Amino acid sequence: MDNNPKVTIHDIAQRLGITASTVSRALNDNPRISEATRKAVHRAARQMNYQPNNIAAALRHGRSRLIGIIVPTADRAFFASVVRGIEEMANQLGYKVIICQSYDSYEKEVQTIDALLSARVDGVIASIGKNTETFDHYQRVQRAGVPLVLFDRTTDALEVSQVMVDDHLGAYKVVEHLIRQGCRRIAHFTSPKKVSIFKERLRGYADALKDNGLPYDEELVVSSNLQLEDGRESMQRLLGLEHRPDAVFSSSDYGAMGAMQVLKEHGIKIPQEVALAGFSNEPFTSFTDPALTTVDQFSLTMGKRTAEVFFEQLKAGNKNPVPQKIVLKPELIVRASSLRTGPLAGEAGHL
Amino acid sequence: MDNNPKVTIHDIAQRLGITASTVSRALNDNPRISEATRKAVHRAARQMNYQPNNIAAALRHGRSRLIGIIVPTADRAFFASVVRGIEEMANQLGYKVIICQSYDSYEKEVQTIDALLSARVDGVIASIGKNTETFDHYQRVQRAGVPLVLFDRTTDALEVSQVMVDDHLGAYKVVEHLIRQGCRRIAHFTSPKKVSIFKERLRGYADALKDNGLPYDEELVVSSNLQLEDGRESMQRLLGLEHRPDAVFSSSDYGAMGAMQVLKEHGIKIPQEVALAGFSNEPFTSFTDPALTTVDQFSLTMGKRTAEVFFEQLKAGNKNPVPQKIVLKPELIVRASSLRTGPLAGEAGHL
Repeated sequence: MDNNPKVTIHDIAQRLGITASTVSRALNDNPRISEATRKAVHRAARQMNYQPNNIAAALRHGRSRLIGIIVPTADRAFFASVVRGIEEMANQLGYKVIICQSYDSYEKEVQTIDALLSARVDGVIASIGKNTETFDHYQRVQRAGVPLVLFDRTTDALEVSQVMVDDHLGAYKVVEHLIRQGCRRIAHFTSPKKVSIFKERLRGYADALKDNGLPYDEELVVSSNLQLEDGRESMQRLLGLEHRPDAVFSSSDYGAMGAMQVLKEHGIKIPQEVALAGFSNEPFTSFTDPALTTVDQFSLTMGKRTAEVFFEQLKAGNKNPVPQKIVLKPELIVRASSLRTGPLAGEAGHL
Repeated sequence: MDNNPKVTIHDIAQRLGITASTVSRALNDNPRISEATRKAVHRAARQMNYQPNNIAAALRHGRSRLIGIIVPTADRAFFASVVRGIEEMANQLGYKVIICQSYDSYEKEVQTIDALLSARVDGVIASIGKNTETFDHYQRVQRAGVPLVLFDRTTDALEVSQVMVDDHLGAYKVVEHLIRQGCRRIAHFTSPKKVSIFKERLRGYADALKDNGLPYDEELVVSSNLQLEDGRESMQRLLGLEHRPDAVFSSSDYGAMGAMQVLKEHGIKIPQEVALAGFSNEPFTSFTDPALTTVDQFSLTMGKRTAEVFFEQLKAGNKNPVPQKIVLKPELIVRASSLRTGPLAGEAGHL
């Protein structure tokens, strides 16, 4: 598995007729080295298949210049976009990002933490899986002195910096908008999991009803895994009620999509008979017919803020900065699935 | 950055009243150790915050039990699903997968290869970025003796095992289907990039026209980056032609989606006036109205086959197995966007 022959900085120095320490500085992008020399050294290193032994360096200095990001799945536009935000800043600072997926499995999350610690990553940035209810594995990251920042799916059970959106506010805005559109029996799709985002959205839903003098009807709150199929089933159940809802606010875009399919199959008009809204602004929500009202979470901004908090912490080192909690304001995106009265001044578009 | 105090296998052995070599075997999941002991050791290791120094082990044995996967972006359903397929097999064999994104940037791809080699991954599995036209960085992986397998976006410029779908066949099936639906002027959205998948799809399009006695009209072949906006622009351009097309086959689902939006905005009926088909079977294609005809690439299967080829190669070690080229057959998914004649026996559904 080793390179053969093993090229050293001395070989590069000899080839270029410069000193080994100049080569070393050039490879580390030391600003004291001219751009021309830096480029010549990097080119020679590449041509000669020089492998900087970063692992040996990591053992000596405890640094790999790698940041491990754990997400439930990398294929959700939201997570992909947060990762992109983190990655942009990390790359600028000379760090590479590696992504690991927990698939919402507690076991996989634990194993991933172990693998990342073993690989001596410089830090861990994570969004907690839906099925994680204990946090020892994250405490191990902290005990190992490795910076840890959580985003979106976070927990107050850990003394850790968190970056999230105000899910309560996002949900509140959706329900307020639906009420202004004349909806009075607003159903909600939520998740039974112990993840704060869903609890906060449910709370926002309930508060908006209360503040507008509408009753909270348990029959209209349906708990599921919030995937497409769940949305279908939940909508079927709601259509079986004696008093059908006139709007559905789903805590996920996929759930709302399932509801849309069932409503269309039954020839129920959206938004005239049932208005619809989701949460997350997945790209497909603008492709559906009607396009889906949803909540944008500024995922790229979330990634950038997460990276900022992370690098502050990395810089502080053992000085243990006080954990920060950064809460971003989400934006309501009003589209045709909930606009009963045509584009209204101050209602259409981004709120 | 180091653990303090540093826990060793001797500490674990003392606590459990067993020998250090039993602890070591248990931590390595040696089958000679009973399940009960194995669990007790793992539990104690976790409680005591034991950090197996895998990097030191990697230096000694050249192994990290990490596989680096490079994809253009992890948020495309296709790539996510291939990664899932690879990950399932890797996890079963005790390997963890780390994902790196090239964002189709040649520079980032090169840097990622360097980072993965420095991290002493046990292998690299990659899908080449759209803008990559030279492959020295992949040759460095091979020269370092690290197993390399390419999938989907591959190249014959390297002596390397490849797993791909038959893009020519997929495109051929789409165009044949459109012709059977009565379409005679079939446009095609393609990419100018040097990526074989798009060239193969264009070739499949041209061959299907030829085999059915239809002319190849350059005016109907539009080159772009194949994103949603590109699809919109390409469709606008086609609508400006004296003889409009009666069908559009886009080499990407996003491009087809852009075309669908423009057709709907112009009140042009899909599929009666213009039939539409995409490629990749992104999940949103079943959400659109009408649902989009597309080609499924069996991404999960592709991931599994890729993992199989990879682990064969890993096992063979320095014996340098002959590179394999595995070509999977894609499946045409017929949906409403191209079905002019109602569900036909043998035509609707998966072909």
